[in-house]
Amino acid sequence: MAAPKLSSDDVQRFLGFADALADAARDAILPYFRAALTIDNKQAQSFDPVTEADRAAEAAMRALIEREFPTHGILGEEDEEKPSADGYQWVLDPIDGTRAFIAGLPTWGVLIALNYQGAPLIGVMDQPYLDERFRGWNDGAELTTDGITKPIKTRACAALSDAILSSTDPYLFKDAEYDAFQRVRNAAKLTRYGYDCYAYSMLAAGGIDVVVESGLKPYDIQALIPIIRGAGGDVIAWDGGDAAQGGRVLAVGDKRLAQEAMTLLS
Amino acid sequence: MAAPKLSSDDVQRFLGFADALADAARDAILPYFRAALTIDNKQAQSFDPVTEADRAAEAAMRALIEREFPTHGILGEEDEEKPSADGYQWVLDPIDGTRAFIAGLPTWGVLIALNYQGAPLIGVMDQPYLDERFRGWNDGAELTTDGITKPIKTRACAALSDAILSSTDPYLFKDAEYDAFQRVRNAAKLTRYGYDCYAYSMLAAGGIDVVVESGLKPYDIQALIPIIRGAGGDVIAWDGGDAAQGGRVLAVGDKRLAQEAMTLLS
Repeated sequence: MAAPKLSSDDVQRFLGFADALADAARDAILPYFRAALTIDNKQAQSFDPVTEADRAAEAAMRALIEREFPTHGILGEEDEEKPSADGYQWVLDPIDGTRAFIAGLPTWGVLIALNYQGAPLIGVMDQPYLDERFRGWNDGAELTTDGITKPIKTRACAALSDAILSSTDPYLFKDAEYDAFQRVRNAAKLTRYGYDCYAYSMLAAGGIDVVVESGLKPYDIQALIPIIRGAGGDVIAWDGGDAAQGGRVLAVGDKRLAQEAMTLLS
Repeated sequence: MAAPKLSSDDVQRFLGFADALADAARDAILPYFRAALTIDNKQAQSFDPVTEADRAAEAAMRALIEREFPTHGILGEEDEEKPSADGYQWVLDPIDGTRAFIAGLPTWGVLIALNYQGAPLIGVMDQPYLDERFRGWNDGAELTTDGITKPIKTRACAALSDAILSSTDPYLFKDAEYDAFQRVRNAAKLTRYGYDCYAYSMLAAGGIDVVVESGLKPYDIQALIPIIRGAGGDVIAWDGGDAAQGGRVLAVGDKRLAQEAMTLLS
């Protein structure tokens, strides 16, 4: 489904509110990041920092949404879905990349999307430890670091043989999916693993050309779609369909790569 | 070969000098990181930021070493080896993780080691973009972030079934090595890919339990050995031998993991 066109006032209003959500998530999560590295092992056995941080961040964001937009729906990783009364739905993943978080690696992120009847309108990917915030609204995208905001755009790359490919973990692909991923991997110039939402964000910023994944949930991908589209790329399903509900996802910085990758994935 | 015992004055002197090397490398490299993301594609075709940054950083570090320690040898990734006149040798990898660097991912690092007749004495892993500097001297290790220095230590982990494993890329293992890695991967609790020297550093800091890699060069690993040993872990070859010359490397945060991993790797 095509997203409805938001006025630029709406874009600014929703992005401003998404910033407030991201700020609340930062405050909730950062005290837990690498916290396990400094506690002793006896404590560590009953301490699950990623779960506590996840829950605290989602609760903080839900409270803000319910106060500001009581008619909007909420789909989050942690808590029960709240149905939408007006077609708008916030889609939240407080910590995308929990395995990176657990290992102390700074490549997880907070994902915040707003969709209308399932079509993503705006998205924010926030990396609190790096102080990097990616924002997108389908027609544009930007990165804020250390208080400085700059537009981002994907880079030109016409063929997989010139492309940097990324995927979180090749062993997350099963059976035919694994073979399909191998065909893309063998065609690409080089492949990086392990970056979850950070790979999609660096695709939007022009560092990576293709991301291929499967088994995604809506909250793993919705925030990244308006960022990548706004930066000039696209996010689709492996068969070219809608990727907003997750599943098998193909992100390309240069749309010319989509057909070549889809053929190898089919 | 066991490293000779340095006096604490020597440790401080060499670490202080390694800091100066790392500062020089930072100044040389940071202007190039993500620089390709902001130039247009026509320029990009003749612009190889990682090679330029690599060379500039190694040249800067070599100049400092030749001035301060003219009798010391230098082994670097970029330039010709300078033989040692007194048994001391600096081992430099200006950018470990060039593929991460190219993709704009902040998980590469500057690696600086000093060995005596091949036995690593001190090591520094510097991540300029994150402002994180790991230092180790076999008897201790520390991490400096935003000007604050704290000791680091590996975490307790008695069995692979509880362990977080990391490796840069599973497809870097060939044939029997690939099978050996799969045995460790299947035994581990979870596996993260893609982090080069940053994985070893987070092992030293207690976030990761095991790193398994092959095909390493001496400059890929020497700096990391005194950091991991100083934090309580160990770095050995897959067969339990010396890892300082690279090759097939096994790093463990808890030494109790070494035998279990070696058995699976053999």
